Amino acid sequence: MSVQTPDAKVLVANLAAYEARYAAFKEQKLALNMTRGKPSNAQLDLAKGIMTVLGENDTSSADGTDLRNYGGLDGIAEMKAIFAEMLECPPAQVIVGGNSSLTLMHDTLVRAVLKGVPGGKGPWYGQSPKFLCPSPGYDRHFAVCEHLGIECITVDLDADGPNLKQVEALVADPSVKGIWCVPRYSNPTGTTYSDQVVTRLASMKTAAPDFRIMWDNAYVVHDLYDTPDPLLNILEVAKAAGNPDRPLVFASTSKISFAGAGVAVMAGSPANVADAKVHLGVQTIGPDKVNQLRHVKFFRDFAGVRAHMRAHAELLRPKFEAVGRIFEAKLGGLGVASWTKPRGGYFVSLDTLPGCAAEVVALADAAGVQLTAAGATFPGGRDPANKNIRIAPSLPPLSQVETAMEVVAACVLLASARKLAG
Amino acid sequence: MSVQTPDAKVLVANLAAYEARYAAFKEQKLALNMTRGKPSNAQLDLAKGIMTVLGENDTSSADGTDLRNYGGLDGIAEMKAIFAEMLECPPAQVIVGGNSSLTLMHDTLVRAVLKGVPGGKGPWYGQSPKFLCPSPGYDRHFAVCEHLGIECITVDLDADGPNLKQVEALVADPSVKGIWCVPRYSNPTGTTYSDQVVTRLASMKTAAPDFRIMWDNAYVVHDLYDTPDPLLNILEVAKAAGNPDRPLVFASTSKISFAGAGVAVMAGSPANVADAKVHLGVQTIGPDKVNQLRHVKFFRDFAGVRAHMRAHAELLRPKFEAVGRIFEAKLGGLGVASWTKPRGGYFVSLDTLPGCAAEVVALADAAGVQLTAAGATFPGGRDPANKNIRIAPSLPPLSQVETAMEVVAACVLLASARKLAG
Repeated sequence: MSVQTPDAKVLVANLAAYEARYAAFKEQKLALNMTRGKPSNAQLDLAKGIMTVLGENDTSSADGTDLRNYGGLDGIAEMKAIFAEMLECPPAQVIVGGNSSLTLMHDTLVRAVLKGVPGGKGPWYGQSPKFLCPSPGYDRHFAVCEHLGIECITVDLDADGPNLKQVEALVADPSVKGIWCVPRYSNPTGTTYSDQVVTRLASMKTAAPDFRIMWDNAYVVHDLYDTPDPLLNILEVAKAAGNPDRPLVFASTSKISFAGAGVAVMAGSPANVADAKVHLGVQTIGPDKVNQLRHVKFFRDFAGVRAHMRAHAELLRPKFEAVGRIFEAKLGGLGVASWTKPRGGYFVSLDTLPGCAAEVVALADAAGVQLTAAGATFPGGRDPANKNIRIAPSLPPLSQVETAMEVVAACVLLASARKLAG
Repeated sequence: MSVQTPDAKVLVANLAAYEARYAAFKEQKLALNMTRGKPSNAQLDLAKGIMTVLGENDTSSADGTDLRNYGGLDGIAEMKAIFAEMLECPPAQVIVGGNSSLTLMHDTLVRAVLKGVPGGKGPWYGQSPKFLCPSPGYDRHFAVCEHLGIECITVDLDADGPNLKQVEALVADPSVKGIWCVPRYSNPTGTTYSDQVVTRLASMKTAAPDFRIMWDNAYVVHDLYDTPDPLLNILEVAKAAGNPDRPLVFASTSKISFAGAGVAVMAGSPANVADAKVHLGVQTIGPDKVNQLRHVKFFRDFAGVRAHMRAHAELLRPKFEAVGRIFEAKLGGLGVASWTKPRGGYFVSLDTLPGCAAEVVALADAAGVQLTAAGATFPGGRDPANKNIRIAPSLPPLSQVETAMEVVAACVLLASARKLAG
């Protein structure tokens, strides 16, 4: 993932050519949007059947509960069973939520701030809580912390997960209360955590007795290839290490069924689940159970989810491969950029020469290609090296992804040559 | 609503007869549940069409948004239009939420505690916030406050709304940050606030500059008769009084469409709505828009909601009238109980002689009729007079409501006579 030393002489010699190529793109007056990790319409259409899978009288779960009425704080048994298999834990350790895992994560941290968590010494409010933020990472995670007064501390996201040397040094501070993790196909790099990283995160000594790993397994089944990246089960590893309450696991069907009308889930130790239910019982009478039944009838079981995700991969893989192919063709061997080759998830992470990311994004924007703002993948929106750019190839059609990547590559070359010409 | 002085001699003379009648009920080994304000299956069936109203391709709102995808923080325009008419305010002042207005209220107070509200001096956390709780009232409102560290102060709920003498005295304390109100067909008494009460609540001087009225209009269209109780528009009255940010209005379709799979809404001043959106933008990417479309297609417009509620009234009215008829026949004129005759909502409030409510509930339970726990309608579950019982006639079939009320009346007579016999 690291950028090699560029051959400055060659690049500077080509500056005029890069300017010309960029100008030519600008004249095309493109209007392409590569900012958002949204599923495409074709992906959404794969789950069309959810819209009509229920008949008028499909109103009950297997145990006879009328799903239209109040009740059922933690979800219907059939939905819990599917999620339990997905997250590799007993159904009793699963809480099914509404349509948003971001909300489940936000609300979990709200409760920690206001009420504390099992094993802790009361509310985090007033304890100057801090959270470790492996970066580049997911901007909305960091925004939740910033919004709730939890200070974000950036740690490096290495090729096998968060940099453990940094992490293990920082958790000696008792005000460091947790860490954000997207352990499989991490946003935006596509990194999957190695067994060693998972084991050390689960077993390391932390000064805070109520340290929490926010394990956002957003891409748990979002493989681009038939051989998923292996990932250890954090709940089991933490339990074995004597830290059963440390991990809180989150996921959703947002990028399986419908991004805005899916079903979210959290899982944790019995103590964490019992604690969450106490709070949830005050916050709500229960999530939308009818929508859970729609999902259950449509997918039938976890094997159905797996099969469905293979169809997603067919749509996504060509786009991801186009990004890599075009970057390789245009930027390969020049030492001006590196990029990830994810085997799943929703993003490609592009690193430019230090100090060039914001200019690349600005150049692309001026040429009609909107990219995620430079810095967005770091806490506070500030990338200290100003080099990381998040590429989101899922939403536009393949031809647009290809055009946009040609433009991005041209912008990288131009920004790099300009810088080197200094 | 007040209990008259009973003729102790007559009642005590009948004690043996009351014991016998109660014993006879006990022998029937009934199993009736009158605890929950849930709609009946027949009511839920009225909205059956929601289950199938969307076709596979009904995936867009009128403005072309794909409702299956991410986005749309405050709801789709068509749903906002219906709620705006229901709550009598501009659509821009409406935020459509998930399936639970309780969640919207809980989260609103969470934000107040953690971040403060417009016009205030920062987070309520550490300000010893207090809330006025007109009682008898809705237990879940009080539970939210208790859970979030907001102290509940009981004030009387009179026949025309909260006792304003008490309220106006208490709001001279700057730590009194708000009041819970169910202004139309209040839970559990059925009280609708008079114009004078609404006006004074909206315009009274409060020591707290960030005082909030949590206006839970849960029964906004839940009339039992063709002539709804009139209710002033709190948003307009407060605006006219120079306190536009004071009221926060909540409602949902939980008791219109499906209790567990409906759509919730909040409304407020432009400042309150803007503030809520900032927080919501961190908490979620948006509510379930597909379910909003289901509701829009099914009801079409607010007139459709009104028509639908008339069908609900046809199912509910006989149950409410049975409660009143049986209480009147068995308890009328004896001075041992009073009860409300609501013209809407979901509950009847029964007052026994002081000190008798818990025994009545226990006697009924022993005879196979479960009632809401005595005291539940007061903060902390403690009714200082031990006299209020919440009757929830909506869920069981009419015949069961009738039987249960016969039992309750018998329990009231027995408990009263026992007490008077000393």
